[in-house]
Amino acid sequence: MKPAQPPRSSADILATAPAAVWRDVDPDNLLVMTLPQGQVFIELAPRFAPAHVDNIRALARGGYYDGLAIVRVQDNFVTQWGDPNADDEDTGLKGKGKPFPAGAKSHLPAEFSIPLKGVPMTVLPDVEGWAPRAGQVDGFPAAADPKTGEAWLAHCYGAVGAGRGNAKDSSTGAELYAVIGHAPRGLDLNITVVGRVLKGMEFLSSLPRGGAAMGFYDKPEQRLGVERVSLASALPAEQRPALQVLRTDTPTWNELLNARRNRGGWFVHSAGYTDLCSAAVPVRIKPVPAPDVKLSEPKSPEAKR
Amino acid sequence: MKPAQPPRSSADILATAPAAVWRDVDPDNLLVMTLPQGQVFIELAPRFAPAHVDNIRALARGGYYDGLAIVRVQDNFVTQWGDPNADDEDTGLKGKGKPFPAGAKSHLPAEFSIPLKGVPMTVLPDVEGWAPRAGQVDGFPAAADPKTGEAWLAHCYGAVGAGRGNAKDSSTGAELYAVIGHAPRGLDLNITVVGRVLKGMEFLSSLPRGGAAMGFYDKPEQRLGVERVSLASALPAEQRPALQVLRTDTPTWNELLNARRNRGGWFVHSAGYTDLCSAAVPVRIKPVPAPDVKLSEPKSPEAKR
Repeated sequence: MKPAQPPRSSADILATAPAAVWRDVDPDNLLVMTLPQGQVFIELAPRFAPAHVDNIRALARGGYYDGLAIVRVQDNFVTQWGDPNADDEDTGLKGKGKPFPAGAKSHLPAEFSIPLKGVPMTVLPDVEGWAPRAGQVDGFPAAADPKTGEAWLAHCYGAVGAGRGNAKDSSTGAELYAVIGHAPRGLDLNITVVGRVLKGMEFLSSLPRGGAAMGFYDKPEQRLGVERVSLASALPAEQRPALQVLRTDTPTWNELLNARRNRGGWFVHSAGYTDLCSAAVPVRIKPVPAPDVKLSEPKSPEAKR
Repeated sequence: MKPAQPPRSSADILATAPAAVWRDVDPDNLLVMTLPQGQVFIELAPRFAPAHVDNIRALARGGYYDGLAIVRVQDNFVTQWGDPNADDEDTGLKGKGKPFPAGAKSHLPAEFSIPLKGVPMTVLPDVEGWAPRAGQVDGFPAAADPKTGEAWLAHCYGAVGAGRGNAKDSSTGAELYAVIGHAPRGLDLNITVVGRVLKGMEFLSSLPRGGAAMGFYDKPEQRLGVERVSLASALPAEQRPALQVLRTDTPTWNELLNARRNRGGWFVHSAGYTDLCSAAVPVRIKPVPAPDVKLSEPKSPEAKR
């Protein structure tokens, strides 16, 4: 009998995967946020939050986010950015905010879930407690409940959501947050998730934590500037980031997932399991074929683990 | 009929809890790490890793950690500190490391799990996929498997473990790491967990990420100094931090846990669930009773959420 094939590492699996397992990120769904410390690339999820994604596109096209600020960094929770002078029901601040550009709406429906029917989810083999079903949709971590017929995006590390006040439908996409700690899945179905960070998380996760309640910065001068937020489709072609996300309807994803569930090498014990948020879909910069058709090595956050 | 009592917030529950629900942290189990940016307080877990805890005490008493460095910060994973010149099987570096002080051992057994029998676990009502049983032991997040008869500490946010090489028993406690991202539970049962950060996580989680493979810093000058690591019991009485951890065998913990599982207020949906790592046991600075016996408000990471 031949011995069973030893499991390959994630890096090996990705390095030998054919080009067809990667999907180009639509530049109309890709937000490029420029901070003094670096660029953050966010893929928007129009399937789950069509009204918010439309509004974020209109806000970005109109230059709304340019010159705003990171106002809150709460350890093991979120980094949040927006207009520090926007209307705020807690502080009573009103009428001092930056006006919305033409085409952007000041009221949107809550988009906490969508009908499960027809959603192309790559279902995870493992069950977790947060939802009856979990898996990947368009590369985003998602969950579903066949009983209620709903599907929704999950608050995993890097998830980007639209801050809201006490009313369910009080988010507009003008104020956004990214998850920088252990997945706060209790937020699922409570707020509109609009996408996830594909690249540049370290520029949001390594910021000084805010000293006021909920991680807001105590003083205005502690806030960090947001220089510019653009849709990739609005950038000149040569400035557009060529990001790719692994397709999950591929043998490559299945092999990666099993390599994560059944660890080899340094590991002496394998859980034979993964939770949803420990199984992020890999991202890479699209390799440029050299004249001799030698592809450069894929770069991915997964490959480093 | 009287209406059901609305659930109280975590802050309210903690503010009104009697003093007896809090346990003083034993100064012989409390490591105080002084970094240029602030102090990190780590509670050691002698029940789970007696040999490592003994060795860490000997290393701290002998001044071993003083002047070492933070060598690795990998986004969504760990911050790691130790002697950059220690023997390393990957680089082949040997014999350049700082010698261990008297009383510290250079070889320890692996302490990945302990017998479950007799372990006083406050079992969580919810089931998760990583282990058949999960809960709190001495305030630490832990898991267990009644079939194998083992219990072990879980890699939740803030867990502190002893780095090892390829051999199971190659950790000594000289190199330590703290979890700074989504709980990497796949590490459970693969490495010795020695405790958890009670206070000061933000000084480990907000550091610049390392640019080399696995988040190591590329250049020696990027490393961040560790000024001093002391056992609280070795500090003069007036410098000893008076930290307290909530006891989990109390109605206060049950009420807190249920407030976390069943959210009110801003939340419109409640999962009726929590995973182990989303239910950290609160920590506070012991209040000093004023002459009029008015207690100062408890400070806790949970109270802010």
